[in-house]
Amino acid sequence: MTDETLQRYRESIDNIDAALVFMLAERFKITQAVGRHKAVSGLPAADPRREERQIARLRALASDANLDPDFTEKFLRFIIEEVIRHHQGMQG
Amino acid sequence: MTDETLQRYRESIDNIDAALVFMLAERFKITQAVGRHKAVSGLPAADPRREERQIARLRALASDANLDPDFTEKFLRFIIEEVIRHHQGMQG
Repeated sequence: MTDETLQRYRESIDNIDAALVFMLAERFKITQAVGRHKAVSGLPAADPRREERQIARLRALASDANLDPDFTEKFLRFIIEEVIRHHQGMQG
Repeated sequence: MTDETLQRYRESIDNIDAALVFMLAERFKITQAVGRHKAVSGLPAADPRREERQIARLRALASDANLDPDFTEKFLRFIIEEVIRHHQGMQG
């Protein structure tokens, strides 16, 4: 038995998930370029103040979008951890 | 000193992060509607086979997008855990 309402919801979730994946792929392309650029330009790899600004901004955007700011901060930290792992992989 | 190249990259990252946040907000709106619909229709809350299909599909999309499939699976599980937390919050 297929529930048609559930099926429609799931199609929307699948569309959004595809968009999230491609968006993330683009984000990692840019952070890899940042990593290369910092290495070539002798800029420090980490920038804690930038990270704090990103988190504050995303928490505010999350509130506007009715999304839990704490979850959003966890989400950004989850992605940033992966970026750091990539950068370590580039160095290793 | 501001590095202009770095600044441009960061603007792109900020745009993508805003898109991710609004996309996630929309996704949670839908999963909340799914939770309500399942409760009203007497459908089971969890559907492990659906989850397996989602993961397999996103891993394939990730490969197309040159994104690490393992990271993508972790990412989806991270979001699904939050969905489950929301549903538990709705029940409690």
